[in-house]
This record gives sequence, structure tokens and C-alpha cells, in this order.
Amino acid sequence: MAFSPLMRELMDALRVLPGVGQKSAQRMALHLLERNRVGGQRMAQAIQSALDRVGHCQRCRALSEDEICALCLDERRDNSQLCVVQGPQDIFAIEQTGYRGRYFVLRGLLSPLDGLGPESIGIPQLLQRIADEGFAEVILATNPTVEGEATAHYIAQSLQDNGILVSRLAHGMPLGGELDTVDGGTLTHALAGRKAMEL
Amino acid sequence: MAFSPLMRELMDALRVLPGVGQKSAQRMALHLLERNRVGGQRMAQAIQSALDRVGHCQRCRALSEDEICALCLDERRDNSQLCVVQGPQDIFAIEQTGYRGRYFVLRGLLSPLDGLGPESIGIPQLLQRIADEGFAEVILATNPTVEGEATAHYIAQSLQDNGILVSRLAHGMPLGGELDTVDGGTLTHALAGRKAMEL
Ligand SMILES: [Zn+2]
Ligand SMILES: [Zn+2]
Repeated sequence: MAFSPLMRELMDALRVLPGVGQKSAQRMALHLLERNRVGGQRMAQAIQSALDRVGHCQRCRALSEDEICALCLDERRDNSQLCVVQGPQDIFAIEQTGYRGRYFVLRGLLSPLDGLGPESIGIPQLLQRIADEGFAEVILATNPTVEGEATAHYIAQSLQDNGILVSRLAHGMPLGGELDTVDGGTLTHALAGRKAMEL
Repeated sequence: MAFSPLMRELMDALRVLPGVGQKSAQRMALHLLERNRVGGQRMAQAIQSALDRVGHCQRCRALSEDEICALCLDERRDNSQLCVVQGPQDIFAIEQTGYRGRYFVLRGLLSPLDGLGPESIGIPQLLQRIADEGFAEVILATNPTVEGEATAHYIAQSLQDNGILVSRLAHGMPLGGELDTVDGGTLTHALAGRKAMEL
């Protein structure tokens, strides 16, 4: 017993952050209160503002405080390509490769055992958007895991026979790896070497 | 460019936390917004409440939302011993050793080149408290660094000739090390083997 109730609550609350254990949370709480209260205030406000105002872009489903995000509104982007990713962190990774087409965020992968079907991850919206916007190519950039492959396969099947090139990131990425932890060079090669998807 | 202004502000704000770089901040922000908004809300509120209400105990100067903290109010503690530490995190470390006396937090160390003299780190209040409360022993548990040794030495000199045993944690701790990163066993031994301070 050395911390007051509000201190303990702060330490417990900080542990919701990924990778933050008890010792880190303790250091963080003491740092905010002893050394950087201005920074702590800024952080509390930034979290609150983001929670209050950041939702999902209605077009690509990335995180955004606007109905349509800046990337979707950017007229310099290539309207012939759509890159489908499983989470918003992946947009950042793909942007690093120099890709300048459009995006769609699934926000999850098919996982029948967990009750996650096509509707749960936005596949109907994806197919509608593809029908509306006339992309020449759809790049399926889900992670190379069992669920990622199954989801890509399902989408590719849904798009067959309509003249759109459906491609998948080239292998070169570690199997079972996660897209947003791969280094930029590997991902750039994987994107450049993408292959038409075979059914 | 893949994150909205509020997202970027959130990522920047999270970097005030110790040990959090750009990549971690990005992961944390996405985690809070995509996966755990309830946790994010709890965190924002916990930070705000702590900043608004946690100050310093008027007796020991530890972080507390009460004027006198629970540890200072606890009548089961040993009133014959006072342990002087340089920061509130050190109370937690010393508590792990089984010590059950009283505390005083300096909140810094003497550092003349940085303009930190005895008043800056609360030494007048420490001496007043020692005069008022009649401790039999004062344990100087500042870190074994140049400033920590100099501060302990200064306090020991201020207390000489008044019959109080002034002790210092036994060596066994790594020189230049920080008290709150030492493992509990080492610290327990260092406390048990503490020696009367020689001037
Ligand atoms: Zn968008
Ligand atoms: Zn106290």
C-alpha cells in the first residue's frame, strides 16, 4: 500500500494500452503527475476529443473525424485501384510503399467459428462500392494468415466474372506475419510483385 | 498522409509517456479507437481526475489526493524510523522490503549547477519534521549516484550532534543505479545491511 485510490485507478487505467504492464503503468502515472502535468492534460484532452469525434469514413471505413476522409476526398489519387485491408493501421503501412490508389478497410476477417460472417466485416459495402466506382483492379491486402487468405478468397470469388483484376500481395511476407509489422522494403516488393488471384 | 488531424494529435500526445515512440503511439491510438473505446474513456477520465485532485501529502510529500496520505495516517506504522527517498516511486520499492516506518519524499536531489539547493528539495521541511516527531533513526535512501550521495551527506551533516542515528542503505546496489529499478531481493538486503553514516 503506497498509492492513493486515484493513483491506483490511473495505473490500472493505463494498462488498457497495448504492451503496458504493471511496472510501465506505474512509471507512466508517476511521470504524468510528477514531471509532466501539462503533457498529461494534453493527453487526456486528446483521448477525449478523439473518442468524441473520430468515427469511420463512410467511403473507406478508415478512422476519421470527417464523414468522408481526406484520402477519399483527394482528387489526385488513382481511381482505378482499390486496396482492401483488414484494419486502419494497414493503410499507413501501404502508404509507405508509394501506393496512391483508393482503400477499403474491412475491420476484421471472416471467422465463422467466432460468428464473423461477410456482413460483420463490411463485405456487402465493399462489393457495392466496387460496383459503383468501376475500379480496374482490386488488391486484396489482408494478412497472409489462415483467416486473411480465406477472406481474400471469399472476396475474389464474389468478384469473379465481372472483368475486374483481383490481385493479392506477392509472397515474400512471412507466413502468419502481420502486415503492419513488416519492414517497408519487404512490403514495397510484395506490393510490386502482386499476382492475379487464382480461384 | 493516412491519419486525420485528431488522430495525429492523439498519437503525438501519447508520446509524452515515458518509453513510447512513434510506432507505439500509433498502435496505442488505433487500439483505443478501434478496439477499446470504453478503456480509452476510462483512461481519459483517470488522467483528468488524477491531475485535478492528486497533489502532495503535507507530511511526507508523496503523491496523494488527501492532505495527509493514508500511509502517514496509519497508526500501525513505526514512528521511530523515517526513510528519506528522492521520489514517490521509491516509496513503493521500499515498501516491498517490508519496511514499516515513516517516509519523507525529497522530490529531487541537490544539484548546485542546476540551481537546486536545499530549499528546492524540501530539506528545511525535512529537518523541521525530524525536530517535531522525534525519530530514533533517519534512513537516507537516495540513489547511490553522485547527487544522491551528496544529498545524503548534506542531510547527515545537518543532523549531526543531535543523537539521531542517521543511516544509509548498504552497498550491494549497483553504483549509478536507480533505486526503483533494483530487484526486490537486492533492495531488501541493502536495507537490512544499512550502516550508520560516517561524516
Ligand atoms: Zn475514406
Ligand atoms: Zn504522507
